[in-house]
Amino acid sequence: MHTKVLSATTLINDDVKNRAGDDLGKIEEVMLDVDNGRISYAVLSFGGFLGMGDKLFAIPWSALNLDTEEKCFYLNVDQKQLENAPGFDKNHWPNMADPEWGRSVHDYYNVTPYQN
Amino acid sequence: MHTKVLSATTLINDDVKNRAGDDLGKIEEVMLDVDNGRISYAVLSFGGFLGMGDKLFAIPWSALNLDTEEKCFYLNVDQKQLENAPGFDKNHWPNMADPEWGRSVHDYYNVTPYQN
Repeated sequence: MHTKVLSATTLINDDVKNRAGDDLGKIEEVMLDVDNGRISYAVLSFGGFLGMGDKLFAIPWSALNLDTEEKCFYLNVDQKQLENAPGFDKNHWPNMADPEWGRSVHDYYNVTPYQN
Repeated sequence: MHTKVLSATTLINDDVKNRAGDDLGKIEEVMLDVDNGRISYAVLSFGGFLGMGDKLFAIPWSALNLDTEEKCFYLNVDQKQLENAPGFDKNHWPNMADPEWGRSVHDYYNVTPYQN
């Protein structure tokens, strides 16, 4: 059996990499669609280009793959794509329940939103 | 629009009550089915009968209803039912990926397990 049931807090601070092994930051938060019982997004922090602080990115959960042995998540983008991704800073979180915003984020990472 | 997308860490420590207003404890953890993108259980701590420490209970997510204004969850059991519910102590967590264990817990709270 391969199902993994893990506590939300143990996932926070896990590293995120791509398959080439590049560091893409770490998990800052896990966002839950409470009514539908779904994990919607992980919030990834990736930091400090151009002397600015960490930037945050909402990554659709389905775009991430957990490697429990390595305790890291894989996300199939390169650093350049992430630098250009729709992000936000820690004082200006988007409304993640907005379906239009959700579609654009899913499109960027080339995954399909879940069906309720 | 009523969908609520909230961070996992903000849900921890929320109070749990029943509709009669009885205190049933608080949310200790949120358990995630990582591969299927589902919120599986909330771990509820309810404390201290008979001089023992808090006991923990895995509550199927679908048995809980969040009231965002009150910042509390409603669970439709009385305290007596919870005292007799299948629980565990903080050093002996069950394997929450075990389907047989999962069925018995869902049965106790009279809810249906989600379909992957």
